[in-house]
Amino acid sequence: MIIVIGGGPAGRLGAIHLAQAGKDVRLVEQRSIGGQCLHERCMTICALNDIARLIESARTQKDLGILDSVPTVSYPAIRKRICEVQNKLSSVLDAETRRAGVEIVYGAEGRLEGDRVFIDDEEVRADAVLAATGSRPAIPDIPGTDLSGVHTYRTLPAMPDLPRRMAVIGGGVVAAEFAHIFHAFGVEVEMIARHGLLRDLDEKMRAAALRDLAGVGIRERTPVASIEGCGRVRSVILAGGEEIEADAVLLATGLVPNSEMLQGLEKRPDGAVVVDRRMRTSVPGVYAAGDVIGPPYLTPAARREGVVAAENILGRETVMDYEGIPQAMSLRYDYAFAATADGGITLSAPAPAGPGSFWDVAGGWAGLAQIRVDPESGRLLGAAAAVPGASLLLSYIGYLMKRGITVDDFDEIVEVHPSTDGVYGLARYAAGMLKKKNE
Amino acid sequence: MIIVIGGGPAGRLGAIHLAQAGKDVRLVEQRSIGGQCLHERCMTICALNDIARLIESARTQKDLGILDSVPTVSYPAIRKRICEVQNKLSSVLDAETRRAGVEIVYGAEGRLEGDRVFIDDEEVRADAVLAATGSRPAIPDIPGTDLSGVHTYRTLPAMPDLPRRMAVIGGGVVAAEFAHIFHAFGVEVEMIARHGLLRDLDEKMRAAALRDLAGVGIRERTPVASIEGCGRVRSVILAGGEEIEADAVLLATGLVPNSEMLQGLEKRPDGAVVVDRRMRTSVPGVYAAGDVIGPPYLTPAARREGVVAAENILGRETVMDYEGIPQAMSLRYDYAFAATADGGITLSAPAPAGPGSFWDVAGGWAGLAQIRVDPESGRLLGAAAAVPGASLLLSYIGYLMKRGITVDDFDEIVEVHPSTDGVYGLARYAAGMLKKKNE
Repeated sequence: MIIVIGGGPAGRLGAIHLAQAGKDVRLVEQRSIGGQCLHERCMTICALNDIARLIESARTQKDLGILDSVPTVSYPAIRKRICEVQNKLSSVLDAETRRAGVEIVYGAEGRLEGDRVFIDDEEVRADAVLAATGSRPAIPDIPGTDLSGVHTYRTLPAMPDLPRRMAVIGGGVVAAEFAHIFHAFGVEVEMIARHGLLRDLDEKMRAAALRDLAGVGIRERTPVASIEGCGRVRSVILAGGEEIEADAVLLATGLVPNSEMLQGLEKRPDGAVVVDRRMRTSVPGVYAAGDVIGPPYLTPAARREGVVAAENILGRETVMDYEGIPQAMSLRYDYAFAATADGGITLSAPAPAGPGSFWDVAGGWAGLAQIRVDPESGRLLGAAAAVPGASLLLSYIGYLMKRGITVDDFDEIVEVHPSTDGVYGLARYAAGMLKKKNE
Repeated sequence: MIIVIGGGPAGRLGAIHLAQAGKDVRLVEQRSIGGQCLHERCMTICALNDIARLIESARTQKDLGILDSVPTVSYPAIRKRICEVQNKLSSVLDAETRRAGVEIVYGAEGRLEGDRVFIDDEEVRADAVLAATGSRPAIPDIPGTDLSGVHTYRTLPAMPDLPRRMAVIGGGVVAAEFAHIFHAFGVEVEMIARHGLLRDLDEKMRAAALRDLAGVGIRERTPVASIEGCGRVRSVILAGGEEIEADAVLLATGLVPNSEMLQGLEKRPDGAVVVDRRMRTSVPGVYAAGDVIGPPYLTPAARREGVVAAENILGRETVMDYEGIPQAMSLRYDYAFAATADGGITLSAPAPAGPGSFWDVAGGWAGLAQIRVDPESGRLLGAAAAVPGASLLLSYIGYLMKRGITVDDFDEIVEVHPSTDGVYGLARYAAGMLKKKNE
């Protein structure tokens, strides 16, 4: 018997992989299958963002005189409907997982003490364990985070209706995604970032993101001193003393691995379980995968880690490869990035107008594409795009980069027209440029 | 001096390629640069479809109680704004083409008599000619096509406002695309197809398309006898005698190559100029590319043909390769298809919900994915998808198929989550299935 603790992307995919190989697998999940990805993060942001993009496109087309009005959202209806869809998807995942041969135990807590496994305090015998207990939102150490109206992505579904004014504390991808969504819904949003906003982004991609966040108040390098209110949040006090009124606060200040129930394993100071590239923890027979091992906190990486752990449990030596894994952010457009190496020449260009961006051309903006090329070999080392569909695009560009694609190879790609793919055009431009240089 | 006749995708890309290689190039364009692709077909459909999708998504979200209303479109505003954006894009193309070193002559007609070249009846000396004169809509041979209110995609911009009821004559991709658009805009649409509707599509993809066309009246295997009216169209009479009321008719019955001005070259009965795979016509020194050589009538193919012609004019032996070129159709979702070989096992599955399709899950439909796999080698022979972003996806899948990708290789692709890419999941499923079979 193999015990998998946690039914998020890492645990679920690992469990399926093991069951399909003929193993007895018991998956222990406290709540509902699908993890934060389905219930609180990826899919929730996708759901809200699909609405936000519709509203913003309607605004653009209304300004052009094409549409007569811009619809208004009902947040209570969104809450109810998201939940319905998530439950539907959850039952699909449940069925798929059982069909693969996995036994699922809901409502129980899995716990480790070294190599001893407990399910709801009852010790069970296990040939191997996959710990995929996920993560939770970090709560910053400031007064007032327990006030009513202070949310994390976890408690947002409990927000009864849209606030008039929301303060988003945080400067990363998730903070930007929610700020964009609630601003599109008509909320006055103020972002407060301790450091820079989206500071890991390339300068041009960041400028594009700021364009998508136009209308959102942005304060950078601004620590928060406290959240104030009497029972309910009323305002945020900045370190400099300034008071920002807000009737809701969203804390988007990172993630903490859920590893308290995993004892006797080597961990990092933040609680992340230490694993090697085969997903082995410091305890023989105990593997870990997904958010509980720390960044990159991405569903596809977690899935892959789960499968790598399963392969190693099966005795097949497989290592996790993080090269070329695309990262993404959803604002008005998709933002997606992938890289396999540093260096090279960087080229950027406005993206061509295509499905989803045609009417933005009227405002002079159809997004951005960027590549990094090794001038000697012509190999593509990195790519990024801020266009509708960038996530799909970079999934495949990331793979092609791992396979060593050169800018010359793009000559053989015949795209569908019209397309928002600016990477293709840039690669072909770079191929011509390098050819000229070498003549 | 090299003369290029026609500034659509084939002529323009060919001209740029030649100029960048240092040749003197004169491009003769009767109207505006960009061809039908920019002014009448691809970009117009993209523009209208972006609005149609917004309206349909708004309807879905209104039905779920998420939005309070569905906007109404103003067709006169659409007409005006599309034109403005197209002119903007046209001036970008003009500048790009000139910057590459191409001399553009607007408003003149280029004409060939064998290897003799005329510009507005004045003979000019040319070292080589690239004829890229495009195509125009076919007009079916039935009475009444000259009535006011009878349109092709060319004259649609002149339609003063939305009709109450539109008959679309034709059963191909363009007919379906416009039927979908006008139905979304609130027009009662009746499609009348001489043969089957979208009969070249695989059965499941066709069923998906019919779902997107729900609400459109569809008559198949129904020839039209005549279009009736007194000055203005009033109805369409079917071969069986039935009368379909309509205050507008759209003729979408195919394309005719524009080759009347190209004399002394071998042509097919439909007027298409005959070329070999190097884009050489029957007259030495005269090349042809784009719609004037007949199907597939696709912008990316035309562009590539223009470049292949240019390469051969430059003395570099290059052949046109049509393998794996993706085809696409835009309805509520993108429909895209690519294939490199026949045969194999076909697998289909509902696509995962992702950006652009989340709220359609509530109605039980997030699109479709399909693959064809060679069970021996595991090679992907064909793929299709009906999801948001399918066009971007199939552009890269088409290329990977040409490069011989197997379903096992998909193991190395790490996608962005959530994603509408169902091809990825199917390929991984097929890989597992084939592995089991071979064990």
